[in-house]
Parts: sequence; C-alpha cells; structure tokens
Amino acid sequence: MANESRGSTLPLADNTRSARKHKAILDAATEVFYHKGYTGTSMDEVAARAAVSKQTVYKHFADKERLFADIVLRAVDEIDDLFSETALTLHATDDLDRDLAALGQQFAVWLMQPDVLRLRRLIISEANRFPELSRTWFERGFQRVLATLADTLTHVAERGLLRIDDPEVAASQFMGMILWIPVNRAMFCGDSERFTQAELARYAEAGVSTFLAAHRCP
Amino acid sequence: MANESRGSTLPLADNTRSARKHKAILDAATEVFYHKGYTGTSMDEVAARAAVSKQTVYKHFADKERLFADIVLRAVDEIDDLFSETALTLHATDDLDRDLAALGQQFAVWLMQPDVLRLRRLIISEANRFPELSRTWFERGFQRVLATLADTLTHVAERGLLRIDDPEVAASQFMGMILWIPVNRAMFCGDSERFTQAELARYAEAGVSTFLAAHRCP
Repeated sequence: MANESRGSTLPLADNTRSARKHKAILDAATEVFYHKGYTGTSMDEVAARAAVSKQTVYKHFADKERLFADIVLRAVDEIDDLFSETALTLHATDDLDRDLAALGQQFAVWLMQPDVLRLRRLIISEANRFPELSRTWFERGFQRVLATLADTLTHVAERGLLRIDDPEVAASQFMGMILWIPVNRAMFCGDSERFTQAELARYAEAGVSTFLAAHRCP
Repeated sequence: MANESRGSTLPLADNTRSARKHKAILDAATEVFYHKGYTGTSMDEVAARAAVSKQTVYKHFADKERLFADIVLRAVDEIDDLFSETALTLHATDDLDRDLAALGQQFAVWLMQPDVLRLRRLIISEANRFPELSRTWFERGFQRVLATLADTLTHVAERGLLRIDDPEVAASQFMGMILWIPVNRAMFCGDSERFTQAELARYAEAGVSTFLAAHRCP
C-alpha cells in the first residue's frame, strides 16, 4: 500500500486551488480521525468539516484508506526531510557529541509534538484491524529514519571517528536510548504529558554519552 | 487509582470458588476488552462470557474501570515478580554478559507475548480518554521494572563490575537498546508479526554488548 499511496492525486504545486483543497481535506480528516478513530470516521464528515463536497473529497482521495495513508505519509515525509537534512550536517561534523545530541534531540522534539503523538496512538490502536495503514508508518517513517541514521553513522565511521560493527543495530540503539522514556511516557500518560526542550536535550545528551563511550574511536 | 486498585476484592487463596470466579471474570473481560475496546465493553457481556451473573461481576469488581485496572495489574504484577527474581540472580553474577543478556531477553520475551502486546495496544489507544488506566501500566509496570533494573545495576556497580553515574538513566538505556525495534515492529505491524526467541536473544546480546562497552569497569 505504501507505494500505491504515492499514486494518489497529489497536486503538483502547493499554491493552486486544488492543492489548497487537498490540504484542507487532509487537515479536516486528521481532526476527524483523532476524535472518531479510523472506523468512526466517514467521508461525509470529512467533507463537511473541510467545507467541500463529498465528490471533491473523492476526487482527491479514492477512499478512506487512501486518505488515512496520505495523512501518515505527510507526517513521515516531514520528519524524513527534516532528519535527512540534519543528518547530512553530521557528515562533516567537527563536534560529534554536540551534533549527535542535536540530531537526537531534533527527532525527539518532532516525535513529542501532540499531533504526531496522536497520530502514532491512532495508528497503534488500529494496527490489528488495518495493518497496512500502520505498516506505512513503520516502513516509511520508523525504518527510513533508522536507515538514514545508519548511513550517517557509516559515513562518520569511515572518517575514523566511530567504530561501528553493525550500523543498523547502532542506529536503533541510539534511538532507543534517547526515546525509551519519552515515547513510553507519552503513549501511556496521555497528551497531557508534555516534555520541555531541556528534558529532551538531557535524554539526547545522556544517550549520546553512552553511545560514544561504546563507539568512539580511541 | 493504582493504589486503590489494590483494594478491590482480591481473593485470599487461589483455590477457593470465589477465586476461580474472580479469575474467570478477569479472563472473560480480557477477551471482551480486546475485541470491543474499552468503551465497547459492557459488564453484561463480561458476565455472559464468564458464565456468571452480572451481580457476581459487581461483587468482584465495583465497576468497569476497576475491572480493567485489575487486568492491567495482573499483567504488571506478573512481569514484576518474574523480573525481580531474575534481577536478583544478577547480584551474585559471575558472568555479567550472559546474565544481563538473559535478563534483557526474558523481559523482551514476556513483552512480545501476543496477549501482552494486545493489552499494551489497548492501553495506548485509550490513554487520552482514560489516562488513569494507562497510568497504572506506566507506573506499576514500566517504571517499576526500570526501578528494579536500576537497583540491580547499582548493586553490580557496588561490586566493582560496572561504572554507572545514573542508574535510572542506565536502566532506561539498557531497555531502550534491546526493545526499540521489537516493540515498535510489534506495535505497528500488528499481531501477525512474531519474534523468535533467537531474534530477541540477538537484540538482547547486541544491547548488552554496547551497554558493557560503555559501563564495564576496566
């Protein structure tokens, strides 16, 4: 499904009337999904909330599944762009501690946004009934970010700054160390739990400290 | 709520008729919650499935919230007992790599059980509407396991085998490294995703290897 989703009627330019409607429908649908869940959401309600006709909704999105998939894709593409750009700056780093911590903190801050957490919670709650929806998040979001990080770690290792046997494993350990408490607290304690930038920076710095103690070239 | 839940009518002995009914109701309710979600579950349906009267259900559990809380407590108490016992064997370890990996693997195997994953997913999906239910899981499960691990790491550090500045942080990093991929894959890819013991052992060993590279006393 992930690949097919790319085939939906994505507008070419962001400033066309069609693109504005596309975005309005996605925003409206996001709100409805958050409040009603996947099963409780109807295309009628999405149309009403976006102030467009149901026909217009179907012109942009073939069905509810495609609509939800595009919401997921919009989120994972956003973090992929952001994360890839920051990861690139690490290739030429002259301060590994600082730049790794910045990368970890940036990802944590993105993930801890209330909208992202709500989407994540919605995806998890529907994962058994609609595994193809959550798989998009897993493959295009979770795994893609890990792959970008693994590439970056490989590059830094080639510069002689790190010793990494298995970049994929190292990438997942990096993320797990930084995010284990924030993600679990956010998932289990509801949206009222907020993290400050300073808290997330501390988790990032602590994770990087352990990561470099294990992987830094002597 | 977590503390009050201890006050529910827990039977003293497991072999009394009342205890058997208590367990039958919990088992039946677990099934209904999994299929209908928290909101969709009624005490009537629980009674029917447990083949007891609704009055009997209410004799054991004051309301639906208490019933769900007791299901959560049954799960977290189970892992707490198991984990504490294994953690104790670490105090006298003569093979830190082996015993830490065994502890990590044991926890991963417990968490990756289909019933535990389903409960975890249910709790996450209801965390915004019923934060007090998910808080029980977080405080009595997640945080308690981390506290046990932090105590254990402190003890091993006092024997001169580890160098640990902050045992709580070290415990969360230990868990995060081992569980980041398994937990995310399980949450996002639905219950059809299964991990073999060998896979979980590899995540545990890789996590312990990085953990000890950072924390082992020279």
